Amino acid sequence: MATEAAADDVSETYEQFLAKVKRINNVGNASSVLQWDQEVMMPEGGTPARSQQLSALSALHHELLTDDEMGAYLDELEDADLDDEQAAVVREVRREYERATRVPTELVEEISETTSEALPKWEQAKEEDDFSVFAPILEDLVELKREYAEHIDPDADPYAVLFADYEPYLDLETAEETLTRLREELVPLIDEIRESDADLAFDAFDGEFDVDTQEELTRDVLDTLGYDWDRGRLDTAPHPFSTGTQFDARVTTRFDAEDPLGALTSTVHEFGHATYTLGLPDEHYGTPLGESRDLSVHESQSRLWENHVGRSEAFWERFLPTMKERFPQLDDVTPAEAFEAANEVYEDNLIRVEADELTYHMHIVVRFEIERELIEGDLAVEDVPEAWNDKYEEYLGVRPETDAEGCLQDIHWSHGSFGYFPTYSLGSVLAAQLYATADAEIDDLETKVREGEYEPLHDWLTENVHRHGCRYTTPDLIEEATGEAFTADYFLDYVTEKYGDLYDL
Amino acid sequence: MATEAAADDVSETYEQFLAKVKRINNVGNASSVLQWDQEVMMPEGGTPARSQQLSALSALHHELLTDDEMGAYLDELEDADLDDEQAAVVREVRREYERATRVPTELVEEISETTSEALPKWEQAKEEDDFSVFAPILEDLVELKREYAEHIDPDADPYAVLFADYEPYLDLETAEETLTRLREELVPLIDEIRESDADLAFDAFDGEFDVDTQEELTRDVLDTLGYDWDRGRLDTAPHPFSTGTQFDARVTTRFDAEDPLGALTSTVHEFGHATYTLGLPDEHYGTPLGESRDLSVHESQSRLWENHVGRSEAFWERFLPTMKERFPQLDDVTPAEAFEAANEVYEDNLIRVEADELTYHMHIVVRFEIERELIEGDLAVEDVPEAWNDKYEEYLGVRPETDAEGCLQDIHWSHGSFGYFPTYSLGSVLAAQLYATADAEIDDLETKVREGEYEPLHDWLTENVHRHGCRYTTPDLIEEATGEAFTADYFLDYVTEKYGDLYDL
Repeated sequence: MATEAAADDVSETYEQFLAKVKRINNVGNASSVLQWDQEVMMPEGGTPARSQQLSALSALHHELLTDDEMGAYLDELEDADLDDEQAAVVREVRREYERATRVPTELVEEISETTSEALPKWEQAKEEDDFSVFAPILEDLVELKREYAEHIDPDADPYAVLFADYEPYLDLETAEETLTRLREELVPLIDEIRESDADLAFDAFDGEFDVDTQEELTRDVLDTLGYDWDRGRLDTAPHPFSTGTQFDARVTTRFDAEDPLGALTSTVHEFGHATYTLGLPDEHYGTPLGESRDLSVHESQSRLWENHVGRSEAFWERFLPTMKERFPQLDDVTPAEAFEAANEVYEDNLIRVEADELTYHMHIVVRFEIERELIEGDLAVEDVPEAWNDKYEEYLGVRPETDAEGCLQDIHWSHGSFGYFPTYSLGSVLAAQLYATADAEIDDLETKVREGEYEPLHDWLTENVHRHGCRYTTPDLIEEATGEAFTADYFLDYVTEKYGDLYDL
Repeated sequence: MATEAAADDVSETYEQFLAKVKRINNVGNASSVLQWDQEVMMPEGGTPARSQQLSALSALHHELLTDDEMGAYLDELEDADLDDEQAAVVREVRREYERATRVPTELVEEISETTSEALPKWEQAKEEDDFSVFAPILEDLVELKREYAEHIDPDADPYAVLFADYEPYLDLETAEETLTRLREELVPLIDEIRESDADLAFDAFDGEFDVDTQEELTRDVLDTLGYDWDRGRLDTAPHPFSTGTQFDARVTTRFDAEDPLGALTSTVHEFGHATYTLGLPDEHYGTPLGESRDLSVHESQSRLWENHVGRSEAFWERFLPTMKERFPQLDDVTPAEAFEAANEVYEDNLIRVEADELTYHMHIVVRFEIERELIEGDLAVEDVPEAWNDKYEEYLGVRPETDAEGCLQDIHWSHGSFGYFPTYSLGSVLAAQLYATADAEIDDLETKVREGEYEPLHDWLTENVHRHGCRYTTPDLIEEATGEAFTADYFLDYVTEKYGDLYDL
């Protein structure tokens, strides 16, 4: 009887705790709607009110997450007899709670104010192509984020603490080993490609492509891949993104009349993010079991669809005829040529967001190495441009001639986001590992991709990744889904084979 | 010294209080963004998540408004030495606080749950044209709203208490006198019109009007009137509305290929609401001084633009050429004919939202009399259809043959909104009073309207109405703006003259 009564108490506490967690997540999801609206719909004049609305919601979110009631729930549930799902929810909320309570409010506010000031400084510096405009406030941000890391864990490597904000369960050693391996194996491959005499159809999509027709084509590609329009929508945004919940996961894209592949690729990428969100279980909406795992896993889903599906020859066999209906000017292009054009390795590109699937990772390695040294105090802010340019020359064989095309190109540091970049590469690497497993487990996946039969791949990803939400930590999720630990083997095999074939290496 | 220190304390308390008020209003404004999105952008599947997000924000709004801290601020500020603006802010928040704290949470929840159930019942009843499907839950709602009123003020007329939710400062006597006077003076006027032999150009806009072109035309009319696109946008919605803040006030409309006036009129109406919002002072955003007065004043702004501008002959002289550019099929229509068509009095219309400027108020009188008797227990729910039909016959000379076209046509009661309807008529009446004052104070306003020079009218309304926010109570605002108390004189003069001329009475 005593035990049953105690179990009832736990169960009641857990229900109250869960109601509070849902409320917190609903506030967070409301903020996401406001942010989507701000990027996609809001008239320009709306900014002052929107900033205040978002900051009110963000403050409430923080207060609800860190109040005494939440602390008491977590303490009571810590040693309680919980089932696996309940334990996972407590684990995830505890983690958020700890990180949020350890940092003093004043520091949070100072970081928030400094990033608000940093954004226009970064914009001005980029506009004027002058790193020295941004350098002083970047120095402040580095210092503040070091302090922030110190509060969360004074004994840990501060960069590892910051990295864990974006990727809590894959540790920094894994990230570092992976990025080092990518550098060591991809730099020679990129060199070989640069020296290759292969004559590929990089001009297959040259020309002018009406933007309204491109918009129809992006709807075609979403139809082809099986986007659920009852739970989503497509809009344009200056920087494409995807956002939402399992009930409403929206994608955005952008158009360039001279680059029809750009909108397609970016749409398929955001579609990948959205399918992850849409695959989360409805019944766990508002709790960690109904929320996606962290950035690397999210990026694995976008990269899987973007690269392993959208840049495959099988996909182009399926999709090129649709594209020709919209753009008869492409009548002579063959699927093999489309495939080649979609996989061009750009030899002198300096810009991360315009990079191909292969050199992309060298852009990340540069950022990773620099931001890590910055946070650890091994590199002075004033020396960033030179370090950046040296690394570009070393890893990519091109040297930026301006700061704007060099270390000022990305917005991340002005947001105070240090430790974010590696998740892009980890996501691509994980995409290859997941796709290899799916390929082994689904009968003749390539034929299915060629025939536009995407449901088995959707189902496999939902079954093995999406439906779990945050039930498992990232390493456990990967182990469950693929039967082994996170590894770059599959990614390196994939690119070596694919680009070896393409470039006759 | 002591007095200064006390003044400092008050000032500090006031600042903290104001910060809290802003936070509460920002949560409310965030909800409005979510609601706009739900009506205009959200995919259908998004409902379950959106409902939870809105209910989390609504609960937080309520908790912040009614917590002990708010009570303590209000008590401390009640007797403090405040300036006029501060006193107005305290008055408005105190009022909201009192109404929110007097009603037990359980009753609020019960009302909220019952209205959630009532909405589909009302939809079903309307669909099946059977009032008995809706009657039982309507009975529950009447009972619950009576209880609600009893909690707020046990000594007051319960309908007066409910009315004050929508119109806190114009008392019920004023509303009743006004509606009675409208009934007494408009019923004979409508009869005269019905008997008139005047041959008016009601067919001027007959035909088919491409909906995409209509959309461009509604943008034209917003351009003509001076809508600030930097702080707004136009979209379509099944039930047009306007929402937002002084930084971002959006309008919606809808299109019917056979009724080009419908979209125009509805757009001008919503434009009127939006200009009020846009005229609120930026510097008081998030406080009562930066928020609009209640429903009657809001409706006065929409009706002023819709009726006194948009249905005037001067406006049609200006706008008809623009309309002809979009729709050359109207080439032979004259401004006088357009004016006549825009002012047709419908002799056998049963539907409120399709009513003209004149008979509209009889639709309101019917609803007002019935809902008042319902709440006061003088009419049984089961007798509503007959009472409704009798009143339509008496006031409008037409008798509904079905419940769907009769007492089931409006959504309001299913929301538990009793006391809302009168504000529509009060708004129209106030529009006439304000327009008459503006006309007296602006040199040759009619010529300006004819020439598309709307800035003086905008400026007058901003100066006399918008910029005050909730600084004055409604009666004081009306007195400040027009130099006299709320009166139906101007409205009755306006319609008597206008329709007398039109129909040769």
